[in-house]
Amino acid sequence: MNAQPPFQERALAALSAAMPADMLLSDPDSLERYSRDWSGDHYGRPLLVARPRSTEELSLLMKTCHELRIHVVPQGGLTGLVGAAVPSYPGGEVVISLERMNRVRSVNPIDFAMVVEAGCILEDAKRHAEDADCILPITFGAQGSCRIGGNVSTNAGGFNVLRYGMTRDLVLGLEVVLADGRVWNGLKTLRKDNRGYDLKQLFIGAEGTLGIVTAVALKIFPKPEQVETALVGVSSVDAAMQLYARARRQCSDLLTAFELILRGGIEIAINASDLTDPLAASYPVYVLIEASAAGRVDLRALLEGFLADSSDLVLDGVLAGSKAQAERLWLLREMMVEAQGRGGRYLRTDVSVSISSLAAFVAETLEALAQKHPEALAVTYGHVGDGNIHLNIVPPEEMPAEKYDALFHATEEVIFDVVDRHGGSISAEHGIGRVKQAAFLKRADPLTLTLSRRIKDAFDPQHLLSEGRILNGGEPGQGGSE
Amino acid sequence: MNAQPPFQERALAALSAAMPADMLLSDPDSLERYSRDWSGDHYGRPLLVARPRSTEELSLLMKTCHELRIHVVPQGGLTGLVGAAVPSYPGGEVVISLERMNRVRSVNPIDFAMVVEAGCILEDAKRHAEDADCILPITFGAQGSCRIGGNVSTNAGGFNVLRYGMTRDLVLGLEVVLADGRVWNGLKTLRKDNRGYDLKQLFIGAEGTLGIVTAVALKIFPKPEQVETALVGVSSVDAAMQLYARARRQCSDLLTAFELILRGGIEIAINASDLTDPLAASYPVYVLIEASAAGRVDLRALLEGFLADSSDLVLDGVLAGSKAQAERLWLLREMMVEAQGRGGRYLRTDVSVSISSLAAFVAETLEALAQKHPEALAVTYGHVGDGNIHLNIVPPEEMPAEKYDALFHATEEVIFDVVDRHGGSISAEHGIGRVKQAAFLKRADPLTLTLSRRIKDAFDPQHLLSEGRILNGGEPGQGGSE
Repeated sequence: MNAQPPFQERALAALSAAMPADMLLSDPDSLERYSRDWSGDHYGRPLLVARPRSTEELSLLMKTCHELRIHVVPQGGLTGLVGAAVPSYPGGEVVISLERMNRVRSVNPIDFAMVVEAGCILEDAKRHAEDADCILPITFGAQGSCRIGGNVSTNAGGFNVLRYGMTRDLVLGLEVVLADGRVWNGLKTLRKDNRGYDLKQLFIGAEGTLGIVTAVALKIFPKPEQVETALVGVSSVDAAMQLYARARRQCSDLLTAFELILRGGIEIAINASDLTDPLAASYPVYVLIEASAAGRVDLRALLEGFLADSSDLVLDGVLAGSKAQAERLWLLREMMVEAQGRGGRYLRTDVSVSISSLAAFVAETLEALAQKHPEALAVTYGHVGDGNIHLNIVPPEEMPAEKYDALFHATEEVIFDVVDRHGGSISAEHGIGRVKQAAFLKRADPLTLTLSRRIKDAFDPQHLLSEGRILNGGEPGQGGSE
Repeated sequence: MNAQPPFQERALAALSAAMPADMLLSDPDSLERYSRDWSGDHYGRPLLVARPRSTEELSLLMKTCHELRIHVVPQGGLTGLVGAAVPSYPGGEVVISLERMNRVRSVNPIDFAMVVEAGCILEDAKRHAEDADCILPITFGAQGSCRIGGNVSTNAGGFNVLRYGMTRDLVLGLEVVLADGRVWNGLKTLRKDNRGYDLKQLFIGAEGTLGIVTAVALKIFPKPEQVETALVGVSSVDAAMQLYARARRQCSDLLTAFELILRGGIEIAINASDLTDPLAASYPVYVLIEASAAGRVDLRALLEGFLADSSDLVLDGVLAGSKAQAERLWLLREMMVEAQGRGGRYLRTDVSVSISSLAAFVAETLEALAQKHPEALAVTYGHVGDGNIHLNIVPPEEMPAEKYDALFHATEEVIFDVVDRHGGSISAEHGIGRVKQAAFLKRADPLTLTLSRRIKDAFDPQHLLSEGRILNGGEPGQGGSE
C-alpha cells in the first residue's frame, strides 16, 4: 500500500514550495473572499488563491500547475454574470487573481492606444485615458469593480457599443499566459496587421478557457468636447425602433447610446430613490439617447433638430441642460438596474435579435409571459441600438424563496423560445460561463461544438483552464475524434 | 505489380464522376484563365477548375476531395497581392472558383446588414447597398474585380478603414464549407452575440487555409448625405502626421480617409495622365482628406474651419467644390498606383508601424534606401491614419529585367529592417500568402507558429486547403507535438 498524501495536499505543497510565499493565500477568510461573485448567486471555494505580481510569476505558477495537473480559474473583479470566475471544477481549482497586476503601462494620445495590465480596474484605466484627453469607451454599471482582463475575457458590451463596438473591437493586442506557462506576446498597438491568423481573437470572449490574459493594448479615442443626453417618451417599442432607424440616418454616427426602458423600469427606479418622474406625464416606453462630438459640430442643434422633426414619434422629451441633469437621467437607468435586485434574487436575461425584429420580439415575449406567468414582474430594458434586450423576471413579493428557481427556469424557457423563433442569441454580452451552459449546449449545432472543442484541445490540451465553462467538461481530445 | 493509373488521373476521374459535368473545367484554355493573378506576378496551373453553384455543391465537392485527399485552393477575383489564390501545391491543386456563387441574398436597411455570397464582386455588393440608401464601406482599387469571399479571407483594408474598420470589423456572420465538406453555418446578422468562441474570427484573414467562405453577413451604414474631399500640401511626413492628430481630435470621427502621398507619387500620376498639378506650387508631401456626414452637420464649414485653423501645417490646399472635382483628386491617387506598374514589375510593400513613429519610419527608410540603392525609385504613399505605408520600389529604366529580383530582395530587406526596428508589421493589409511567407516565418515567434499550426490541424487535419500559404507546408499534427 502506498501512503501518499492525497493529490490536493501534494499539489498545494508543491505550489507553496515553488512560489514566493506572499503570492499564495490559504487561510479560510481569504479563501472566502474569492469564493463568491458580485451578484451573490454563485459560490465556490478555491483550493488556494494565487496573486501573481507579474507575467513572469504567473508563467512560473502555470508551469507548476501544468506539471502537476492542477486546475485553475482566473479571476478579475468577480462582476461577471454567468458564474465563470468562481471555482467549480469538482476536483478543486486554484483561483488566480489578477488584482496585483493592475498597472497602466502606457497611454499614447497620438497612437490613440493604451496598454493596461489585466488586473487594472476599468474605471482606473478610463481615468488614465482621460488624463491624456482621451476616452476608453467601455462603459457599464460595474466599471468601478470589473477588471480589464475580465472585460476582454467576456468581450464586454455596455452602453457605448453603438458607436465604439464591443471590447473585441477595441483590442489591438494581448499578452497571454498559456496553460503550460508559456507567454504568448501579442501585445502591439498597430492598427492594421495581417500577418497570419489573428490569434488574439480566440482569447477575447473565451472566458479564461484558452489562456490567461495578462495585459491588453486598447484603442482609445479623442475625448469629446460635447456630450448631449436626452430622454424621450414614445408610445411603443416599435415607435422606439423607428426613432432609432431615423437617428442612425440623421446623426452621422455621433450617437453613443440608445437605451430603451419600458415604463415599469422607470417606476422601479422612482420608487426606490428620490428621483422623480422625468417627464410631465407617463409613457409606455422611454428612450435614453446620447450623442457626442468634438467642438466643430453644433451637437445640441443637431439633436434638437432631430427630436423636433421626430414629433410624430416623440410624445415628450427632455434634452439635458447641464451635466448634472444628464447624470440624473442616467441615474434613472442605473437605479432601475440596482432596484430590481433589492427584493432579493431575480432572473437576468441578456438576449439579442436583429434590430428589425426587436419590437416584435418584445411584444411576443411579454404576451407569452403575461399568459403563462402573470404573477411575475417582467422588467424590460436594453441596448436596443445593438438589438440587445435585458428582459428580467422579478418574483412576486409573496413568493417563497424556494420557489424562485422553478419560476426562473420556466420564464427563461418562455423568453428563450421567442429568441429561438427570431433566430436570436441567448447571450448577447454576458457570455455563457456555467449559468447559460445548458441552454447554450442545447441550442448549439454539433459542428460548432466540435470545432470549439478542437480549439480548446489545441490551446489547453490537459483542460486545466476554467474547465467546464462554455463547454461542458469532458475528456481532452474528444472534439477531434468524432 | 499494380497497374493503377497515377493518383492525379484517378482523382480527376473520381471528381468527374461525382460532380455535375458543367461544374468542372479541364480544357487547357480554361485552366489557363485560372492560373495567373491580377498582378501577373504569380502563376500556377490547376489540376482542374471546379465552379460550384451552391453551398451544397461545394460541400459535395469537398467531401469527395477529402475522401481522395485532393488538395484544393479557393479562388475569388484573383486580385490578391501575395500569391495565395493561384495553385502552388507541388502535387497539384484543384482550383475552386466561387464566381458562380455571386448572389446578394438580402439587404436590410433597418438592421444595417446585408448577406452576400462569397463570389459576389465587391462593387456589385456595394451597388446593392446603395440601392437601399446605404453603403458597404470596403473601398479600394480592385473593387471592380475582387470578390467578397476574398475580401473576408484576406481581411481586406483600403481607404475607409479609418472610419469603418477592416473587413473583419464589418463581418457579422459567415457560412463556411470545411475541409471535410461539412457546412458551418455562422450566418447571422446579430450585432452582439457572446455565445462561446467566436469561430468566424478564425476564417477571416485565414487566406482560405481553414475553410472556404461561401457567404458573408456584413454591416452596412447609412449612405452619407455629404462627402467632402480636400487635397493639401505640407512640408514633411511629420507635418502630415501632426495634421492627422489634429484632424482626429477636431473632426468627431467623421473622417473617412487620410491618405499620404509623397511628391514623387504625384509626379508619376501627372506624367502618366492628363491630370495637372493639383496645387499652384509643388510640395514635398500631400494629404488627401475625406470626411462624410448626414445632413444635419455642416460638414463643409467643419472642414474649412479645420483647414483654416491649421495654416501652420497646411501650406496650400484645395477643397473640392463638386463631386467631379473630388473624383479628380482621387484619380491622382489611383493614377499613381496604376502608373508605377506601367514600366513592368516593381516591388510592393505594405507595412505598418504605430502612428507616432510613422514619420520617423519613412524618414529612416528613405534615407537607408537612398544610401544603399540610389538607383531605385521609391514610391511612398499610404493609409497613414492607420499607420499603414506602401513603400514601393520601381527599378531604374535602364536595369535589365533579370536583375529585378535581386534589387527587390535587397530593398525589401532594407525596408523590413526599419519596420523591425519600429516593432511594425511586414504585412498591414495584404496578408502573407506565399510571397511574404519567408519574411513572416523568419520573424514570427515560435509560439505564434505553434499555435497557428495547431489551429490549422484542428480545422484541416489533412492539410488539404490552400496548403503552403501563411504557414509553410508540413506534416499535419506537427504543431501539437513539439
